[in-house]
Amino acid sequence: MIKEFLNAIIGEPLPNEKTSHEKYNVPFGLAVMASDAISSVAYAAEEILTFLIPVIGLMSYIWLGWISLMIIGLLFILTISYIQIIRAYPQGGGAYVVAKENIGVKPGLVAASSLLVDYILTVAVSSSAGIAAIVSAFPSLAAHKIFLVISIIIILTILNLRGVSESSKIFSIPTYMFLFGMLFMIIYGLIKCALYGAPPANVINAQLKVSGEISVYLILRAFSNGCSALTGIEAVSNSVPNFKEPSQKNAKTVMILLSALIFLIFGGTSLLARFYHAIPTADSTVLSQIATGVFGKTFMYYFIQLTTAIILFMACNTAFTGFPMLMYVVGKDGFAPRQFTARGKRLSFSTGIVFLSFVAGILVLAFNADVHNLIPLYSVGVFLSFTLSQSGMVIHWKNSNENGWEKRAVINGFGAIIAAVTTIILIYEKFAEGAWIVIILIPMLTLAMTAIKKHYNKVADNLRITEDELADIHLDNPFVHVMIVPIASLNRATINALHYARSITPDVIALNISSDKEAIEKLKRKWELLNTDILLVAKYSPYRAVVTPLIDCIGKIADAAGENERISVILPEFKIDEWWGEALHNHTGFFIRETLLRNKNIIISTYPYHMYKK
Amino acid sequence: MIKEFLNAIIGEPLPNEKTSHEKYNVPFGLAVMASDAISSVAYAAEEILTFLIPVIGLMSYIWLGWISLMIIGLLFILTISYIQIIRAYPQGGGAYVVAKENIGVKPGLVAASSLLVDYILTVAVSSSAGIAAIVSAFPSLAAHKIFLVISIIIILTILNLRGVSESSKIFSIPTYMFLFGMLFMIIYGLIKCALYGAPPANVINAQLKVSGEISVYLILRAFSNGCSALTGIEAVSNSVPNFKEPSQKNAKTVMILLSALIFLIFGGTSLLARFYHAIPTADSTVLSQIATGVFGKTFMYYFIQLTTAIILFMACNTAFTGFPMLMYVVGKDGFAPRQFTARGKRLSFSTGIVFLSFVAGILVLAFNADVHNLIPLYSVGVFLSFTLSQSGMVIHWKNSNENGWEKRAVINGFGAIIAAVTTIILIYEKFAEGAWIVIILIPMLTLAMTAIKKHYNKVADNLRITEDELADIHLDNPFVHVMIVPIASLNRATINALHYARSITPDVIALNISSDKEAIEKLKRKWELLNTDILLVAKYSPYRAVVTPLIDCIGKIADAAGENERISVILPEFKIDEWWGEALHNHTGFFIRETLLRNKNIIISTYPYHMYKK
Repeated sequence: MIKEFLNAIIGEPLPNEKTSHEKYNVPFGLAVMASDAISSVAYAAEEILTFLIPVIGLMSYIWLGWISLMIIGLLFILTISYIQIIRAYPQGGGAYVVAKENIGVKPGLVAASSLLVDYILTVAVSSSAGIAAIVSAFPSLAAHKIFLVISIIIILTILNLRGVSESSKIFSIPTYMFLFGMLFMIIYGLIKCALYGAPPANVINAQLKVSGEISVYLILRAFSNGCSALTGIEAVSNSVPNFKEPSQKNAKTVMILLSALIFLIFGGTSLLARFYHAIPTADSTVLSQIATGVFGKTFMYYFIQLTTAIILFMACNTAFTGFPMLMYVVGKDGFAPRQFTARGKRLSFSTGIVFLSFVAGILVLAFNADVHNLIPLYSVGVFLSFTLSQSGMVIHWKNSNENGWEKRAVINGFGAIIAAVTTIILIYEKFAEGAWIVIILIPMLTLAMTAIKKHYNKVADNLRITEDELADIHLDNPFVHVMIVPIASLNRATINALHYARSITPDVIALNISSDKEAIEKLKRKWELLNTDILLVAKYSPYRAVVTPLIDCIGKIADAAGENERISVILPEFKIDEWWGEALHNHTGFFIRETLLRNKNIIISTYPYHMYKK
Repeated sequence: MIKEFLNAIIGEPLPNEKTSHEKYNVPFGLAVMASDAISSVAYAAEEILTFLIPVIGLMSYIWLGWISLMIIGLLFILTISYIQIIRAYPQGGGAYVVAKENIGVKPGLVAASSLLVDYILTVAVSSSAGIAAIVSAFPSLAAHKIFLVISIIIILTILNLRGVSESSKIFSIPTYMFLFGMLFMIIYGLIKCALYGAPPANVINAQLKVSGEISVYLILRAFSNGCSALTGIEAVSNSVPNFKEPSQKNAKTVMILLSALIFLIFGGTSLLARFYHAIPTADSTVLSQIATGVFGKTFMYYFIQLTTAIILFMACNTAFTGFPMLMYVVGKDGFAPRQFTARGKRLSFSTGIVFLSFVAGILVLAFNADVHNLIPLYSVGVFLSFTLSQSGMVIHWKNSNENGWEKRAVINGFGAIIAAVTTIILIYEKFAEGAWIVIILIPMLTLAMTAIKKHYNKVADNLRITEDELADIHLDNPFVHVMIVPIASLNRATINALHYARSITPDVIALNISSDKEAIEKLKRKWELLNTDILLVAKYSPYRAVVTPLIDCIGKIADAAGENERISVILPEFKIDEWWGEALHNHTGFFIRETLLRNKNIIISTYPYHMYKK
């Protein structure tokens, strides 16, 4: 029944052969990659203004421009650096792979941990921001915000468990709708300003209290908040092999187009925010205010809000692809629990998907689905992984020794330095507000991964058997078997178990421990009736405990066993049809089994007795 | 470690021989029995007034007198009836036993269910009322009311798990302190009124809004609320054998003393409530107001409040003795899960104790630890069990045919009628406010008990083997053994399992199911190196599912097995030292085991491989 229910939700199982081999062309690839990178524009300008406006009031809009330029400069440097990774790693160069291969395993794991943390945050931030866009348009939904965010995460989980890749071309439609909508709004808004002049700062805006002056700290703070606009640009370099041939060239084209789009949309919205004096509030996003300013509450306004929400949910979805894939890659290397490497019924990495949505869901609840609360945790991981992969590339070029490697190393080296500086700024500026959580989490994750690898190695070493050893094994060497059957009374179930044991070996012990002296006498009397040479050992337990003395007794027999002896315990277990019946019986068998298996070299056999099957 | 922690809280285990044989003399017996019966006086007058005052204002105090007289009349009748039960059942005549033996099993179970429900309510009501007494004296604690009630329940649970019986003589001290405190307050209060006249109804009281007139409905409603004063009087008749010889005479003396005390204290507080115009409020109990009126906020006031609280907690405690004992008696007859019949390490019936406190705790949380909310659920069960036991006694006397049985039958018959009428009034008056829950619960519990008995009988019938059959069994008849070893690869754990299987029978099948074609080829290649005649069956699974096809395959072999064949599955299982290590491995073994045991007549053996021990 549970199975049917799951099938209905997740879909019928798919065979291995159905693994998708679909490849991206340029427009489709752009749509897939764009959602994560471009969607962050929906909140980047807002995160800059949130911090500036309370301090420097209207001056914020001037500084928004400068800070946006800084971020666009950073975008330019990272784009060139990443194009080089695309060239060097046609098989896909995620930060984990690049750092591991060129710098070492530990830096690779740090990069992986950083990315994993950021994938989780992408889900939490993007789903919250998407719902914030909807709530801006329909304020009556504000009361259900957290519920809506959790619902979106659950829907995305189910879609990804079903495996969305086959139908993912459909997803390029809302991406392009969002892109064209945004570009149209920017052009239309700028023309409007050019023709009629920028609207004057309105009354409320003019009343903004100014509590301080511009400072380096403030600029860096705003800059670090705005850096969230750049999350997601690493996606292209991770998935070079998913592009159609010539895959490197196509990937490069997509990378350039993507950067151009981020430049246009981020730059454009920053300009519009300045002209329309958008002020982030709890009810209404900056983008919503810009759209209102440009279009009024017309169809286009709702169009912008809805496509913004959809593209943010799609950004969420990229994490649902990226996280399980990274866990798979890390798990294949033995650094993550093996469950993450198994494909589910629908060929998706179900463990990773469920794990991601679970952790992201907790984050959303803990931070009240509030983007401003979550942002300080965000992007530290991304820029740390940028730094590591760019540094890795420097070493890569140096080791390659190919023509003109110095020039390439310099480009990536510059990227690495810029990314490192940004990482330090991010940590410094956001530390107290939540970045410390990430700073603790990343090394902890890295340590856990190392411990997991060590554990798997130890297990493998313990179990491994060489081919020479295999040839030396004589499975036909006989054992002396001793079989112990714990019994409470003589009934059909215990008789079955005794008979089974007796048919294997003459050395069978029927073991009875009871706190009821009469019951022991009764058992002994009945035993006399049985035509058997099986030894009955019946012991009285004054402390009512039956399980512990039983286990002790069996343990002593096991400890005395010789090299060539095997001690088996046969537990009769009766199986009941009624689901509630289980609760009416003691589960001593379970404890005996688990305790003995854990501590002794004993074989535990369960002989079921089916009530109505005989 | 968990064991040591439990030992520290609950105490070291006690041997069977330590079962308490302590018997009650009259003063000690009175103290033990009194807490439940007398403590209800602490809220009975209050429950009457709560209902009358909003409707008829000051007139309530007149009617309080009349209703108290009715309840005292009822007390008189029940006392005489119960003295007769003491005479007839020297071995202890609880409602369950009396109803079962004389009327039938079903009525017995109804009586038992009623009492069980009421024991749970006793815990919830008495602990809440006790904390209410403390909160009246120390209003600043009001915010922590629910927390305090739950704490009291937890403390009583721990004490009872330890087994409080040995030290229970200490508990007679607060009972007598309460009794003397109350009697002193009543005498002192009445003398004060006689000397100085009753204080005038004060301003607030005079302003009481009168919203209606006295009616039969209202009287019966107040009466039914006041009936809670009589809960607990059945306790003596249940525990006749616990009294010192002559136990019946001593029990009778205690019964009479108890009734006299209820009469004095309930009558006295009703009078005082009338003279001092106590009005129940959310902050202050009626008893607290009376004590304030009589003593002012002196030492005696706090003495009354504290002993009231303690006696209410002790009333709670009687339920902690009564409930597990009744579950034991019912369980011995097969009507309750067997776990309730086992004594814990400290000889107390731990399952019953924990179950009681768990359910009562939920009730307290659901009803916000509010006595007024819980009262409507209370006493229906008690009076239903009164009715059943009194009716049972009528039949008992009739069947006994002893001299003068008619007179005795009439006494109990009258008791039965009065109890029945009271039960009907209780149900009618309190139905909508919560009694309906009890009305549904009691038949449900009765049905569940019948179903449990039926289940145990079915199990016993299935398992039972007669002595003739025993003599016919030939445990030496050999079986043909087929052993299946599911393997994923050839390692030390699987080799062990294969060797074990091979040493028992030549018919061993190594079964491999994998979704990885290469792994299958590798396994086959390695298998060649092994010097063995064991058959390797390796199958490819295109749907990645490994467990389901494995189970199907083994199931088919089992279904084809002849009468004289036994199919065993040997599961290699490696055991890890690290506690977190378990999470890193698949638990397919568990599913294979449970599914096969449930559905097939197959023996499942687990061969442990200990990582660091061999």
